[in-house]
Amino acid sequence: MNRLSVNKLSVAYSHPLLDHHPQLWAPYLSQLQKQTFGTKETVLLHGDEASALWLVISGWLILTRQTPDGKETVVGLCTQGDMFGEAALFPHARYPYSAVVAGSDAELLPIPAAILRELLVQEPALSARVMQLMNERTAQAQLKLEHMTTLSAAQRLGCFLLKLCQTQAKGERVIHIPVEKHILATYLGMKAETLSRSQQQLREVGVTVVGSALTIHSIERLRDYVCNSCSEFGGCES
Amino acid sequence: MNRLSVNKLSVAYSHPLLDHHPQLWAPYLSQLQKQTFGTKETVLLHGDEASALWLVISGWLILTRQTPDGKETVVGLCTQGDMFGEAALFPHARYPYSAVVAGSDAELLPIPAAILRELLVQEPALSARVMQLMNERTAQAQLKLEHMTTLSAAQRLGCFLLKLCQTQAKGERVIHIPVEKHILATYLGMKAETLSRSQQQLREVGVTVVGSALTIHSIERLRDYVCNSCSEFGGCES
Repeated sequence: MNRLSVNKLSVAYSHPLLDHHPQLWAPYLSQLQKQTFGTKETVLLHGDEASALWLVISGWLILTRQTPDGKETVVGLCTQGDMFGEAALFPHARYPYSAVVAGSDAELLPIPAAILRELLVQEPALSARVMQLMNERTAQAQLKLEHMTTLSAAQRLGCFLLKLCQTQAKGERVIHIPVEKHILATYLGMKAETLSRSQQQLREVGVTVVGSALTIHSIERLRDYVCNSCSEFGGCES
Repeated sequence: MNRLSVNKLSVAYSHPLLDHHPQLWAPYLSQLQKQTFGTKETVLLHGDEASALWLVISGWLILTRQTPDGKETVVGLCTQGDMFGEAALFPHARYPYSAVVAGSDAELLPIPAAILRELLVQEPALSARVMQLMNERTAQAQLKLEHMTTLSAAQRLGCFLLKLCQTQAKGERVIHIPVEKHILATYLGMKAETLSRSQQQLREVGVTVVGSALTIHSIERLRDYVCNSCSEFGGCES
């Protein structure tokens, strides 16, 4: 595998899992093919055999589960740089949720379970990276749980917006969230009406909404409003 | 390392991380020393350098964090078979919470970060096991998040009790939870009054409380009451 191919992989498929050790993936370049899914298309179903780990190159995915008594819950919203389907790391595992595309097309890079497990056995560096990403995921879920009792609904929405901005970002930022309001509300653990009220409350700290476009006029101001009530105090972005 | 020593390790320190590959740990037996901490003793502090991964052999630990505006949050309750301090897996990481002993003494087995990282590089089998435990941890946190919106307070308390019973347990079980009520309430994301009301509600499905002893008269009945509203539908125990 020549240098051009390695670069091609890391440029074509920019993702935290690939960026750290692009040379590991180079021999598998021909087997790593980006797939494009259309809006509302189902990528995988809860209970399917976990045949691949999915990296999100662009677009938005909604991860859902259903309770036996018929409620649909949104367990994840994934966008660029996220991954889902970690069950593929483990033999005979099944996906613990369904994944559906939100908004316009999504570009995904599925890493076949067989390649993934082969590489993990060969390369401790990749194991370390996967563990780090899993640890971040756990920390995020635990922090989100903490926020259910320590943050107001408006602060929880603000935290979600800050996560969509880049690390250490400053100033103004426009964000597009192509996810229906009731889905976003469910994901944030609130009712749709509460989400609407929260959006209005965030106006006071300079967040305005026009359609699916959300403008944060001052990331610093939003961060002050949210992170003072969080035990991470903004450290989640470092 | 002879067979006796290997057995001694796995018998003396029964834990999901050690049980799978006791032979990996055998060469480090002399460096793996159980430590006993007294009630209310602090094991580690939020922000300390993560020098060890801690396995809980017996007893109860409360993991807490503080928000800048002064609220204390309970991010974890650990007991036999749990682990905490996974930050030790990563270089230069710090503990993301403090850990304090609840109830009577706790027996802990700290695995020094240096030994852990050395073994992880040498042994893909150990990496796989750690990833599996981390994945379970993430799944638990995500499920707990889901429960904040899909389960009632009484069902969330019921779910916590079921987790303390053994996998596939049936019939009657008496559980001791040596954790103050307001701590348990914070951990479950509810107020102390709500926890009291929830305990009363659970009487109707055969859960009675006397002091710190909680009797589940029929695990099956409690499982029906809780798991019908959960997307895992009891699968979390498998």
